[in-house]
Amino acid sequence: MNIREEARRMKLVSPLLAATTAEERNAALASIAAGLRQRSADIFAANKKDLARAEESGISAAVMKRLKFDEGKLASVLEGIDQLISLPDPIGTVQIARDLDEGLTLYRTSCPIGVIGVIFEARPDALVQISTLCLKSGNCAILKGGKETAETNRALFRVIYESAVASGLPEGILLQAELHNEIDELLRCDKDVDLLIPRGSNAFVRYIMDNTKIPVMGHADGVCHIFADRDVSMVKALPVIVDAKTQYTAACNAAETLLVDRSIAGTFLPAACKALTDAGVRLRGTAEAAAIYPMEIMGDDEFGTEYLDLVMSVKLVADVREAVDHINRFGSHHTDAILTENEATADYFCRMVDSAGVYVNASTRFADGFRYGFGAEVGISTGKIHARGPVGLEGLMTYKYRINGNGHIVGDYATGKKSFHFKDLK
Amino acid sequence: MNIREEARRMKLVSPLLAATTAEERNAALASIAAGLRQRSADIFAANKKDLARAEESGISAAVMKRLKFDEGKLASVLEGIDQLISLPDPIGTVQIARDLDEGLTLYRTSCPIGVIGVIFEARPDALVQISTLCLKSGNCAILKGGKETAETNRALFRVIYESAVASGLPEGILLQAELHNEIDELLRCDKDVDLLIPRGSNAFVRYIMDNTKIPVMGHADGVCHIFADRDVSMVKALPVIVDAKTQYTAACNAAETLLVDRSIAGTFLPAACKALTDAGVRLRGTAEAAAIYPMEIMGDDEFGTEYLDLVMSVKLVADVREAVDHINRFGSHHTDAILTENEATADYFCRMVDSAGVYVNASTRFADGFRYGFGAEVGISTGKIHARGPVGLEGLMTYKYRINGNGHIVGDYATGKKSFHFKDLK
Repeated sequence: MNIREEARRMKLVSPLLAATTAEERNAALASIAAGLRQRSADIFAANKKDLARAEESGISAAVMKRLKFDEGKLASVLEGIDQLISLPDPIGTVQIARDLDEGLTLYRTSCPIGVIGVIFEARPDALVQISTLCLKSGNCAILKGGKETAETNRALFRVIYESAVASGLPEGILLQAELHNEIDELLRCDKDVDLLIPRGSNAFVRYIMDNTKIPVMGHADGVCHIFADRDVSMVKALPVIVDAKTQYTAACNAAETLLVDRSIAGTFLPAACKALTDAGVRLRGTAEAAAIYPMEIMGDDEFGTEYLDLVMSVKLVADVREAVDHINRFGSHHTDAILTENEATADYFCRMVDSAGVYVNASTRFADGFRYGFGAEVGISTGKIHARGPVGLEGLMTYKYRINGNGHIVGDYATGKKSFHFKDLK
Repeated sequence: MNIREEARRMKLVSPLLAATTAEERNAALASIAAGLRQRSADIFAANKKDLARAEESGISAAVMKRLKFDEGKLASVLEGIDQLISLPDPIGTVQIARDLDEGLTLYRTSCPIGVIGVIFEARPDALVQISTLCLKSGNCAILKGGKETAETNRALFRVIYESAVASGLPEGILLQAELHNEIDELLRCDKDVDLLIPRGSNAFVRYIMDNTKIPVMGHADGVCHIFADRDVSMVKALPVIVDAKTQYTAACNAAETLLVDRSIAGTFLPAACKALTDAGVRLRGTAEAAAIYPMEIMGDDEFGTEYLDLVMSVKLVADVREAVDHINRFGSHHTDAILTENEATADYFCRMVDSAGVYVNASTRFADGFRYGFGAEVGISTGKIHARGPVGLEGLMTYKYRINGNGHIVGDYATGKKSFHFKDLK
């Protein structure tokens, strides 16, 4: 398959999908759900092949669980599709309606971005979620999933694409890339692919970001911090710290560094460190921290480390100001939390920390589209352009400006014969 | 000057500027306006030096006019600053306020992007506009202006920076880069510069886009089209076509290609071509068009040309469908217009053309922030990510999520002990 040619063709098809009605796109989603139910035996059979191959190659039980696509996973993606159908149509929202002058009207209306490239991990449910999110929002998509679930992906994609087209959506709106070298081809399609959403390991996302001119939405690193302020409530703080570090260590929103105000370190640090070590966390910190509670001594230049494991960096700071400086310097602008009962300190922290999420007395693990009530999540962005933090359907939309005139020319306004009156409508 | 080190320092200063109040930023703008007025003699003297040097090097009268900074230009930038002061504060707008659960509240609030790099043409008024736009929106900026106005830029920058700091804004919030090689240094500051806004020639903007990992807002090309549909009103259409091509040929929103429905070509094309040639436009077109009205014959592969001059490409198409295909293939997704009295055809065109601006019976030259009523314009974006079309203050903003909790942990929700209730506030 020639990805560049396919992308070029998809670009020309994309306005057709953008012009479909919400009813047409919702009907396609319902048809996909029905197709997945009817042809589930084929999909489960394909998944068995993937699982058998994975078992041969000695993949861990944890990963095996992610590769599996069974009745339970099917039920959960079908529930996701139902939710997606119930969400309001993101296309056609009028954001600006303004009379510029007599008979000259400006509208700004939401529309799909166009062609989205999504490269995702070996998780069959991700393929269903991503393709249905793209269809709901009127976007064409080129999908490349992890090779460990190649058979399942192929079976799922066939059902999804055939059901969507059978229900009346245009042909060529979805494409599955299967070969690893097609990723590099995709990265060069900057004329035709409008946005790339890579998911997977940090090194992989960083590779994508470094090797394409296409805008990339996502995050490479998640170096999240928890700062225990001098006005901390120890009773509230300890469970939050343990949750942020241990509730799911492999997630980007798990905390990696604990900062503690020096003035309370004598009492707070031993209690926090004990709670963490009791939960199985290995501690590494500055010499100053290690003098209060035994831990491995680490270098100052290691504070940007994302462990994604039961390991945590520990440092003492003079005050909230130094905590903010540390976070802005070593963090990845993902999600950072302060533990304090002092509202003014909390406000200072939230204003000054330059991250997508700034939390007061809550675990960093809340940084997630579902927990924010967005229904569906495309990913989490640590960039500040277009979308920041957990991204829902909104992140797959742009807008266009329409002007309705009656033979209006700029010359009349340049010469002063006419002038704008700018009246917002409604 | 080491731009990378300066950018790094600016990044750490940027939260201080973001945390200032609207009153503080407006006071700084007023102080800048006062400073420019008081020290205008120094600025005019610096501008005289630039003009003398420009004259020696034989620069054209048109360019000389752009380099000039006199009483008239001063009055207009002062008026711009007054307008900027009167605009509402873009910082702190609450976009989402949602109770996630008892005592757990999510807020999404607008905030500045952070550090913006602006590279602009030799136009002293641009330096004032850009730096005041950045301050109004709470953004730090690294500014690099055209070398032809180096003396004027230096004088203006000194007044602007000193006035802003004297009125109480933090030091280090603005930086002027003066050497051409500092542009390449700036392009490598992807850790600390959040957004680049290049202005100038297409080749220059393309160079910036191709040589940095920093998000770039702007446009390299402006290949705009006018399509005369079979249901065109000739009386309305001819002035619009002439205006779109000739009102200011050097602008990105000037039309470059005229598409005409074949079924009306016999009558419409000669009239349109005569109006254009009467206005001094040289025509180039397909053999089919040249058979109806004498013009230079051009190749099909030349339809992506942006003339920025009194030259126009001409082509006949079968219908609105072929017009849309041509525009989506050869256009630059900037602004394209249809001339028609048929509302259904107009709607089809506006839905299907994949451009920032889609116009009905109006000149493409309306694509401009001031004409859209945005007050201030940062630039025009042909990208679809973050901002599209003319970009006002809004394009310099992002947002952050704040959660206020009371010791909330994700573990309680994962185990089912608690559940989210998602209630939008207000």
